[in-house]
Amino acid sequence: MNQPSEIPCYPAIVAAIEVISGKWSYSVISQLCQGAQRFNQLQRSLTGISIKSLTDTLRHLEQRGIVSRKVFPTVPVTVEYSLTESGVAYSEILVRMRDWGVTWGGLSLD
Amino acid sequence: MNQPSEIPCYPAIVAAIEVISGKWSYSVISQLCQGAQRFNQLQRSLTGISIKSLTDTLRHLEQRGIVSRKVFPTVPVTVEYSLTESGVAYSEILVRMRDWGVTWGGLSLD
Repeated sequence: MNQPSEIPCYPAIVAAIEVISGKWSYSVISQLCQGAQRFNQLQRSLTGISIKSLTDTLRHLEQRGIVSRKVFPTVPVTVEYSLTESGVAYSEILVRMRDWGVTWGGLSLD
Repeated sequence: MNQPSEIPCYPAIVAAIEVISGKWSYSVISQLCQGAQRFNQLQRSLTGISIKSLTDTLRHLEQRGIVSRKVFPTVPVTVEYSLTESGVAYSEILVRMRDWGVTWGGLSLD
Protein backbone atom coordinates (compact mmCIF):
# COMPACT_ATOMS: atom_id res chain seq x y z
CA MET A 1 0.00 0.00 0.00
CA ASN A 2 1.33 3.42 -0.83
CA GLN A 3 1.95 5.84 1.98
CA PRO A 4 0.51 9.37 1.78
CA SER A 5 3.92 10.73 0.72
CA GLU A 6 3.68 8.54 -2.35
CA ILE A 7 0.27 9.79 -3.38
CA PRO A 8 0.31 11.19 -6.88
CA CYS A 9 0.47 14.97 -7.00
CA TYR A 10 -2.13 16.30 -9.33
CA PRO A 11 -0.46 18.70 -11.78
CA ALA A 12 2.29 16.18 -12.57
CA ILE A 13 -0.20 13.34 -13.03
CA VAL A 14 -2.48 15.50 -15.14
CA ALA A 15 0.50 16.27 -17.40
CA ALA A 16 1.20 12.54 -17.73
CA ILE A 17 -2.43 11.61 -18.37
CA GLU A 18 -2.77 14.32 -21.01
CA VAL A 19 -0.04 12.65 -23.06
CA ILE A 20 -2.29 9.66 -23.76
CA SER A 21 -5.56 11.57 -23.86
CA GLY A 22 -5.79 11.24 -27.64
CA LYS A 23 -7.08 8.06 -29.27
CA TRP A 24 -3.85 7.43 -31.21
CA SER A 25 -1.20 8.69 -28.79
CA TYR A 26 -0.16 5.34 -27.35
CA SER A 27 -0.15 3.72 -30.79
CA VAL A 28 2.19 6.39 -32.15
CA ILE A 29 4.49 6.17 -29.11
CA SER A 30 4.67 2.40 -29.38
CA GLN A 31 5.50 2.63 -33.11
CA LEU A 32 8.29 5.09 -32.38
CA CYS A 33 9.70 2.70 -29.75
CA GLN A 34 11.04 0.83 -32.78
CA GLY A 35 13.07 3.85 -33.86
CA ALA A 36 12.70 7.06 -35.87
CA GLN A 37 10.08 6.96 -38.60
CA ARG A 38 8.83 9.20 -41.35
CA PHE A 39 5.24 10.35 -41.57
CA ASN A 40 4.34 7.92 -44.34
CA GLN A 41 5.94 4.98 -42.54
CA LEU A 42 3.89 5.79 -39.45
CA GLN A 43 0.71 6.09 -41.45
CA ARG A 44 1.31 2.70 -43.07
CA SER A 45 2.02 1.04 -39.73
CA LEU A 46 -1.01 2.50 -37.96
CA THR A 47 -3.86 0.87 -39.82
CA GLY A 48 -6.92 3.08 -39.96
CA ILE A 49 -5.31 6.37 -38.93
CA SER A 50 -6.17 9.38 -41.11
CA ILE A 51 -3.60 11.97 -42.18
CA LYS A 52 -5.34 14.53 -39.96
CA SER A 53 -5.33 12.25 -36.89
CA LEU A 54 -1.66 11.40 -37.36
CA THR A 55 -0.74 15.07 -37.86
CA ASP A 56 -2.71 16.10 -34.76
CA THR A 57 -1.30 13.26 -32.65
CA LEU A 58 2.30 14.01 -33.64
CA ARG A 59 1.77 17.70 -32.87
CA HIS A 60 0.17 16.80 -29.51
CA LEU A 61 3.16 14.60 -28.60
CA GLU A 62 5.68 17.16 -29.88
CA GLN A 63 4.12 19.91 -27.77
CA ARG A 64 4.45 17.69 -24.70
CA GLY A 65 8.09 16.88 -25.38
CA ILE A 66 7.46 13.20 -26.18
CA VAL A 67 8.32 13.31 -29.85
CA SER A 68 10.95 15.29 -31.74
CA ARG A 69 10.60 16.28 -35.38
CA LYS A 70 13.62 16.49 -37.63
CA VAL A 71 13.41 18.06 -41.07
CA PHE A 72 15.83 17.04 -43.82
CA PRO A 73 16.23 19.52 -46.72
CA THR A 74 15.52 17.00 -49.45
CA VAL A 75 13.18 17.53 -52.41
CA PRO A 76 10.46 16.91 -51.40
CA VAL A 77 11.30 17.66 -47.78
CA THR A 78 11.72 14.62 -45.49
CA VAL A 79 10.40 14.80 -41.93
CA GLU A 80 11.37 12.19 -39.39
CA TYR A 81 9.82 11.64 -35.99
CA SER A 82 11.44 9.98 -33.00
CA LEU A 83 10.96 9.63 -29.26
CA THR A 84 12.79 12.11 -27.05
CA GLU A 85 14.43 11.00 -23.79
CA SER A 86 11.20 12.03 -22.08
CA GLY A 87 9.25 9.94 -24.60
CA VAL A 88 11.36 6.88 -23.89
CA ALA A 89 10.74 7.38 -20.16
CA TYR A 90 7.03 7.68 -20.90
CA SER A 91 7.00 4.50 -22.96
CA GLU A 92 8.16 2.68 -19.82
CA ILE A 93 4.93 3.77 -18.13
CA LEU A 94 2.99 2.36 -21.07
CA VAL A 95 4.81 -0.95 -20.67
CA ARG A 96 3.74 -1.00 -17.01
CA MET A 97 0.16 -0.19 -18.02
CA ARG A 98 0.25 -3.08 -20.48
CA ASP A 99 1.56 -5.39 -17.77
CA TRP A 100 -1.18 -4.24 -15.42
CA GLY A 101 -3.80 -4.89 -18.12
CA VAL A 102 -2.41 -8.37 -18.73
CA THR A 103 -2.19 -9.24 -15.02
CA TRP A 104 -5.39 -7.63 -13.77
CA GLY A 105 -7.56 -6.99 -16.79
CA GLY A 106 -7.61 -10.62 -17.89
CA LEU A 107 -6.18 -9.61 -21.26
CA SER A 108 -3.59 -11.52 -23.22
CA LEU A 109 -0.49 -10.14 -24.91
CA ASP A 110 -1.86 -10.94 -28.39
CA MET B 1 14.79 2.32 -25.85
CA ASN B 2 12.18 -0.40 -25.74
CA GLN B 3 12.47 -3.31 -28.09
CA PRO B 4 9.49 -4.33 -30.25
CA SER B 5 8.70 -7.18 -27.85
CA GLU B 6 8.16 -4.59 -25.15
CA ILE B 7 5.74 -2.52 -27.16
CA PRO B 8 2.46 -2.10 -25.37
CA CYS B 9 -0.27 -4.39 -26.59
CA TYR B 10 -3.40 -2.46 -27.25
CA PRO B 11 -6.30 -4.18 -25.45
CA ALA B 12 -4.32 -4.34 -22.19
CA ILE B 13 -3.22 -0.70 -22.47
CA VAL B 14 -6.74 0.42 -23.36
CA ALA B 15 -8.00 -1.32 -20.22
CA ALA B 16 -5.39 0.53 -18.16
CA ILE B 17 -6.07 3.91 -19.76
CA GLU B 18 -9.81 3.52 -19.25
CA VAL B 19 -9.28 3.34 -15.50
CA ILE B 20 -8.18 6.98 -15.40
CA SER B 21 -10.43 8.20 -18.18
CA GLY B 22 -12.74 9.95 -15.73
CA LYS B 23 -11.88 13.38 -14.34
CA TRP B 24 -11.89 12.19 -10.71
CA SER B 25 -10.52 8.66 -11.02
CA TYR B 26 -6.92 9.37 -10.05
CA SER B 27 -8.04 11.62 -7.18
CA VAL B 28 -10.23 8.87 -5.74
CA ILE B 29 -7.50 6.24 -6.15
CA SER B 30 -4.95 8.45 -4.44
CA GLN B 31 -7.35 9.12 -1.54
CA LEU B 32 -7.91 5.39 -1.11
CA CYS B 33 -4.12 4.84 -1.02
CA GLN B 34 -4.43 6.12 2.54
CA GLY B 35 -6.77 3.27 3.44
CA ALA B 36 -10.46 2.36 3.34
CA GLN B 37 -12.85 5.31 3.46
CA ARG B 38 -16.55 5.87 3.62
CA PHE B 39 -18.44 7.82 0.96
CA ASN B 40 -18.76 10.94 3.12
CA GLN B 41 -15.09 10.89 4.07
CA LEU B 42 -14.14 10.72 0.40
CA GLN B 43 -16.47 13.54 -0.47
CA ARG B 44 -14.99 15.75 2.24
CA SER B 45 -11.44 14.99 1.12
CA LEU B 46 -12.09 15.62 -2.57
CA THR B 47 -12.88 19.31 -2.62
CA GLY B 48 -15.31 20.22 -5.36
CA ILE B 49 -16.57 16.73 -6.20
CA SER B 50 -20.35 16.35 -6.45
CA ILE B 51 -22.25 13.38 -5.02
CA LYS B 52 -23.03 12.25 -8.57
CA SER B 53 -19.41 12.48 -9.75
CA LEU B 54 -18.18 10.55 -6.71
CA THR B 55 -20.89 7.89 -7.14
CA ASP B 56 -20.09 7.53 -10.84
CA THR B 57 -16.32 7.44 -10.25
CA LEU B 58 -16.60 4.79 -7.52
CA ARG B 59 -18.84 2.67 -9.75
CA HIS B 60 -16.40 3.10 -12.68
CA LEU B 61 -13.50 1.96 -10.50
CA GLU B 62 -15.50 -0.88 -8.94
CA GLN B 63 -16.46 -2.20 -12.40
CA ARG B 64 -12.78 -2.25 -13.36
CA GLY B 65 -11.74 -4.11 -10.23
CA ILE B 66 -9.79 -1.16 -8.75
CA VAL B 67 -12.08 -0.47 -5.80
CA SER B 68 -14.05 -2.82 -3.58
CA ARG B 69 -17.23 -1.82 -1.78
CA LYS B 70 -18.09 -3.26 1.59
CA VAL B 71 -21.52 -2.77 3.12
CA PHE B 72 -21.99 -2.86 6.92
CA PRO B 73 -25.55 -3.54 8.15
CA THR B 74 -25.73 -0.51 10.43
CA VAL B 75 -28.65 1.93 10.63
CA PRO B 76 -28.23 3.86 8.41
CA VAL B 77 -26.19 1.47 6.31
CA THR B 78 -22.42 2.12 6.19
CA VAL B 79 -20.54 1.63 2.93
CA GLU B 80 -16.76 1.55 2.88
CA TYR B 81 -14.53 1.72 -0.17
CA SER B 82 -10.97 0.45 -0.46
CA LEU B 83 -8.39 -0.38 -3.10
CA THR B 84 -8.25 -3.98 -4.26
CA GLU B 85 -4.91 -5.70 -4.92
CA SER B 86 -5.33 -4.65 -8.55
CA GLY B 87 -6.00 -1.08 -7.40
CA VAL B 88 -2.82 -1.01 -5.33
CA ALA B 89 -0.88 -2.26 -8.38
CA TYR B 90 -2.52 0.47 -10.44
CA SER B 91 -1.62 3.15 -7.91
CA GLU B 92 2.02 2.26 -8.53
CA ILE B 93 1.54 3.27 -12.18
CA LEU B 94 0.13 6.59 -11.00
CA VAL B 95 3.21 7.11 -8.83
CA ARG B 96 5.37 6.55 -11.94
CA MET B 97 3.21 8.98 -13.91
CA ARG B 98 3.68 11.55 -11.16
CA ASP B 99 7.44 11.00 -11.22
CA TRP B 100 7.46 11.37 -15.00
CA GLY B 101 5.49 14.64 -14.71
CA VAL B 102 7.91 15.94 -12.10
CA THR B 103 11.01 14.94 -14.08
CA TRP B 104 9.88 15.79 -17.59
CA GLY B 105 6.88 18.05 -17.26
CA GLY B 106 8.73 20.67 -15.22
CA LEU B 107 6.17 20.28 -12.45
CA SER B 108 6.92 20.30 -8.75
CA LEU B 109 5.60 17.88 -6.14
CA ASP B 110 3.56 20.65 -4.45
